[in-house]
Amino acid sequence: MTQNSLRETVRVDLGDRSYDIVIGPGLIAEAGAQIAAREPGIRCAVVTDRNVAAAHLDALLGSLAASGIEAAPLVLEPGEKTKRFDELVHVCDHVLGARLERGDAVLALGGGVIGDLSGFAAGIVRRGMGFIQVPTSLLAQVDSSVGGKTGINSSHGKNLIGVFHQPDLVLADTDVLDTLPIREFRAGYAEVAKYGLIDRPEFFAWLEKNWRDVFSGGEARIRAIATGCQAKADAVAADEREHGSRALLNLGHTFGHALEAATDYDGRRLVHGEGVAIGMVLAHEFSARMNLASPDDARRVGHHLREVGLPTVMSDIEGELPPTDILMKHIAQDKKVRRGALTFVLTRGIGQSFVADDVPADEVFRFLEEKRAS
Amino acid sequence: MTQNSLRETVRVDLGDRSYDIVIGPGLIAEAGAQIAAREPGIRCAVVTDRNVAAAHLDALLGSLAASGIEAAPLVLEPGEKTKRFDELVHVCDHVLGARLERGDAVLALGGGVIGDLSGFAAGIVRRGMGFIQVPTSLLAQVDSSVGGKTGINSSHGKNLIGVFHQPDLVLADTDVLDTLPIREFRAGYAEVAKYGLIDRPEFFAWLEKNWRDVFSGGEARIRAIATGCQAKADAVAADEREHGSRALLNLGHTFGHALEAATDYDGRRLVHGEGVAIGMVLAHEFSARMNLASPDDARRVGHHLREVGLPTVMSDIEGELPPTDILMKHIAQDKKVRRGALTFVLTRGIGQSFVADDVPADEVFRFLEEKRAS
Ligand SMILES: NC(=O)c1ccc[n+]([C@@H]2O[C@H](COP(=O)([O-])OP(=O)(O)OC[C@H]3O[C@@H](n4cnc5c(N)ncnc54)[C@H](O)[C@@H]3O)[C@@H](O)[C@H]2O)c1
Ligand SMILES: NC(=O)c1ccc[n+]([C@@H]2O[C@H](COP(=O)([O-])OP(=O)(O)OC[C@H]3O[C@@H](n4cnc5c(N)ncnc54)[C@H](O)[C@@H]3O)[C@@H](O)[C@H]2O)c1
Ligand SMILES: [Zn+2]
Ligand SMILES: [Zn+2]
Repeated sequence: MTQNSLRETVRVDLGDRSYDIVIGPGLIAEAGAQIAAREPGIRCAVVTDRNVAAAHLDALLGSLAASGIEAAPLVLEPGEKTKRFDELVHVCDHVLGARLERGDAVLALGGGVIGDLSGFAAGIVRRGMGFIQVPTSLLAQVDSSVGGKTGINSSHGKNLIGVFHQPDLVLADTDVLDTLPIREFRAGYAEVAKYGLIDRPEFFAWLEKNWRDVFSGGEARIRAIATGCQAKADAVAADEREHGSRALLNLGHTFGHALEAATDYDGRRLVHGEGVAIGMVLAHEFSARMNLASPDDARRVGHHLREVGLPTVMSDIEGELPPTDILMKHIAQDKKVRRGALTFVLTRGIGQSFVADDVPADEVFRFLEEKRAS
Repeated sequence: MTQNSLRETVRVDLGDRSYDIVIGPGLIAEAGAQIAAREPGIRCAVVTDRNVAAAHLDALLGSLAASGIEAAPLVLEPGEKTKRFDELVHVCDHVLGARLERGDAVLALGGGVIGDLSGFAAGIVRRGMGFIQVPTSLLAQVDSSVGGKTGINSSHGKNLIGVFHQPDLVLADTDVLDTLPIREFRAGYAEVAKYGLIDRPEFFAWLEKNWRDVFSGGEARIRAIATGCQAKADAVAADEREHGSRALLNLGHTFGHALEAATDYDGRRLVHGEGVAIGMVLAHEFSARMNLASPDDARRVGHHLREVGLPTVMSDIEGELPPTDILMKHIAQDKKVRRGALTFVLTRGIGQSFVADDVPADEVFRFLEEKRAS
């Protein structure tokens, strides 16, 4: 991590697929200059959603134009439902219609939905073209824009169709988060806290003390985002295609995905990061129940996430949840299941997560039955 | 290339993505044993088309079952039109519906259409799962099943959407070609001859003498297919993602693709290998005209391809061709064009092809005007 006044750069080390994540205020206004300096002559298809377009598209297009970068914008509907085959075709057609070549780029201006969808398109048009991420949600800045996982949902489950396609550059403008709805900011914060819980206990402790400053902006926010990016970059560099250690990033996600599925991916009831928040508390509680960790750690996690305003128990979710056997079906369908055995990220305490691939399904069932009653 | 009575094995060297191409008679009946020996416990989605299914699906499924390999078959319509987004979704849904996991495989039983489509699906379901090619057309055996290029067509052009996804194994049963329509056999033969024309002049001379035996079957056919696979494997190992030398494999293809587009990809008028045959003759003639090669070489190529029954001049194509400026538009749209400059594979003589990236468009235009008049 190199620092330059209020600007930090995290390098993702992946041999000839290495790239920079630049983090700091004012980066949208500077995007044209940043891109032109790295890739002279490049042209872009800018993919975004209606919400982000309203707040930031003109600024980005102005910055690109000022650096002489031709850009063809495409504005999609916001929301998880946009991550589907029809919209993938839409983006691919747009990129081809703009006559972009292999060396040109798809630029994703938006949250994880836009990033995942556009990155997938960039990975398959002409069997792979350039890709630039300008993440505008906190979740996208610390998580989805880094690491090259792209994809869409299928009727069989979330993110089941996609490719690994690394971006060439990530520009995380920390100012754009000021227009992000607070609920989305909190949801992204769950992923920030996740890095502390996986293997950075001192970062989690720092967040417990400084989270208010992260929410309000300024240096603490930049530091939290840069630490999150560094954590993600380390995990990705160690295991680009998620054959092993990268699976730790799924802390809280097996439970979280099941809850998202159980609420029909209805963002009014539960957004991804909220599912992850509840899932992380559940993972700590389940670890305590398996005598792997102290129940105090689970309480500490629950306390902190509740304090920032995140849901932390299943009963925080509005409306009815389906019966536990349906939740278990969603857990078993999650793609981290291999040849029948249940794989979970469990923990020995804060910052001491590990992958357990032999978790007994009946224990999980009983645990969930109890938890939802409580 | 290692030989074992009538069986040859060509290894494609790509580090941890290396794989074998096994070539010889009776391999469909032996597929179960071949696969089970390499990947114990694997399950498969078998994708094929109606023509191939009628002749070979039962034999393959029987062989898999005999080795205890679970297989979920999917039969699609034959023809180039199957390489489209709808059918990609269809295959992905089938694979997910069969609950296959990352370590399981999509098995393509068919020609290049089935191979390209299924390989693309294998490359994107769960961000990449296993892939086995059982090519049943001559073109697929010597070309499309080897090298990992997969994809579908778009309204903007052929093969514009796809991924690089290497198979784990290729089983080329030389007997299955006996049910292939002769016109398709000839079309595949154009790609076999192409390897001689690129950089194996002695192989081209051998084909001139032995082509009748290649058509009738037996050892000459196995030898021709194995040589073709070896040539393709060498090109792929040298340049997996087509950044440079692999472009030589496009000999005859820029003209060929333009002719396919000009005939609306109507297989009744022109199939891919026929376009390549005419395209290779044109590439040799154009090279002669540019004083790069002797006109005798162009005549020799035309003579041989005509002798085996392939079309070799534009007027061999049934019906009207569009005006030359439309052909030029198709040439410019071909994905081998970079930032406006026309890139062609030209030649200094038989077996001496090279990539020229500075071919003047007006020379090509005049050349085509003359050729179509002749
Ligand atoms: N690829 C990965 O590695 C990875 C990792 C984690 C999550 N994801 C995916 O990311 C998605 C969730 O991402 P997300 O939470 O960013 O969702 P999102 O893209 O839907 O964004 C959330 C909402 O905030 C709005 N928004 C975004 N930035 C804004 C801004 N600056 N101002 C105003 N509004 C703004 C969006 O329009 C949307 O309504 C999920 O689909 C998830 O699967 C991917
Ligand atoms: N991926 C690559 O590297 C690559 C290379 C070259 C060509 N291609 C693609 O391959 C496709 C052409 O392949 P193709 O020529 O095999 O076309 P194809 O798959 O359409 O097969 C040709 C016809 O022969 C039939 N057929 C195939 N095997 C048969 C058999 N054993 N018995 C009876 N009928 C049989 C098919 O049903 C079809 O009607 C094109 O789409 C082209 O773009 C890909
Ligand atoms: Zn997440
Ligand atoms: Zn070809």
